[in-house]
Amino acid sequence: MSFKNETVSSFLDALASQASTPGGGSAAAVMGSMGAALVSMVCNLTIGKPKYAPVEAEVKALLARAEGLRAALLDAMADDVRVFDAVMAAYGLPKDDDAQKAARSAAIQSALREATDVPLACARLAAEVIGLCRATAEQGNVNVVSDAGVAVLAAHAAVRSAALNVYINIGGIKDAEFAGSRREAIEALLADTARETEAVFELVKAKLSGH
Amino acid sequence: MSFKNETVSSFLDALASQASTPGGGSAAAVMGSMGAALVSMVCNLTIGKPKYAPVEAEVKALLARAEGLRAALLDAMADDVRVFDAVMAAYGLPKDDDAQKAARSAAIQSALREATDVPLACARLAAEVIGLCRATAEQGNVNVVSDAGVAVLAAHAAVRSAALNVYINIGGIKDAEFAGSRREAIEALLADTARETEAVFELVKAKLSGH
Repeated sequence: MSFKNETVSSFLDALASQASTPGGGSAAAVMGSMGAALVSMVCNLTIGKPKYAPVEAEVKALLARAEGLRAALLDAMADDVRVFDAVMAAYGLPKDDDAQKAARSAAIQSALREATDVPLACARLAAEVIGLCRATAEQGNVNVVSDAGVAVLAAHAAVRSAALNVYINIGGIKDAEFAGSRREAIEALLADTARETEAVFELVKAKLSGH
Repeated sequence: MSFKNETVSSFLDALASQASTPGGGSAAAVMGSMGAALVSMVCNLTIGKPKYAPVEAEVKALLARAEGLRAALLDAMADDVRVFDAVMAAYGLPKDDDAQKAARSAAIQSALREATDVPLACARLAAEVIGLCRATAEQGNVNVVSDAGVAVLAAHAAVRSAALNVYINIGGIKDAEFAGSRREAIEALLADTARETEAVFELVKAKLSGH
């Protein structure tokens, strides 16, 4: 099921409900998509303005990348629901004899790997949004620089939220090499994006004070 | 106009468009509302489970507070659009003679005060959501503790995003006492919520590693 065609209000109802999906993984994807959308907004309010003609080509390139990420992150919401449901289905398999137990265990491990890689991919997409925000804040229309700041905050919350979904699934994975490589990947993303987010936030604050 | 009845996908389209509203202020309100919704989700997946009977009364109280905040933050989205549009309308007033200039300036100052207090109120609501997250992570169903973590991250992104909207409007306010008191208020909120968010994030990570 895809929640992107639900109203904002119904999506929030579904998030709050006792249904396990949508949950934090979907919220992460939506926050990442909001971050990308706000980069696009700043670009759209910059392109065509004579004052910003010197950076128009760069801003158009930022817009194209942001729009691609916005769509990919919205799709990540549906992926999150799908892999979560697959993990639940695997845990629900019968375990009456050794053959069933082995099949169930293999299905759980396979589902948990996918349920690790999907939020990791979401975190990577959100990190790419963060990578657009400094240029957006520096080159975009200064009247909407606060929106570039909100973009980086939303995308960073998405990275950290997706990371929690990586951790929760890694916890059940028996293949230590797989688990270790994903833990390393998400921790590198967390470290890089934390630094960049704070730098962009301070840049935006400084531009707002200079008004 | 209220965007809560738009689909998630249309809301993101509107956010990305060159229309000035919805913008970062609305995104802040939605993130805060998502944080509250995730607190509710954890509570809803805890209430009624025998294992959690000893904390059921507390969790029911958390749920009631989260649901109130979720609704208030969704309303904050409409407030954001309204005050932003009011600021734009004030700037658009005629300024052909001194009387018009004085009236326009007064209208701008009045609109900017409201456009400062509305995101400040949004930040306070999101900070209240953060205030629920530690108890949610500690007492809620441990199987969904990652959702309590996403809740605090979404709410914190909301506080910081709303803060940028406070700063941008304070910048145009001539009443130094008003501006100073709001700057102090938002900076106190930023400091308190940053500490609490990191503490809850680490608590959630520790619980996930203990799985």
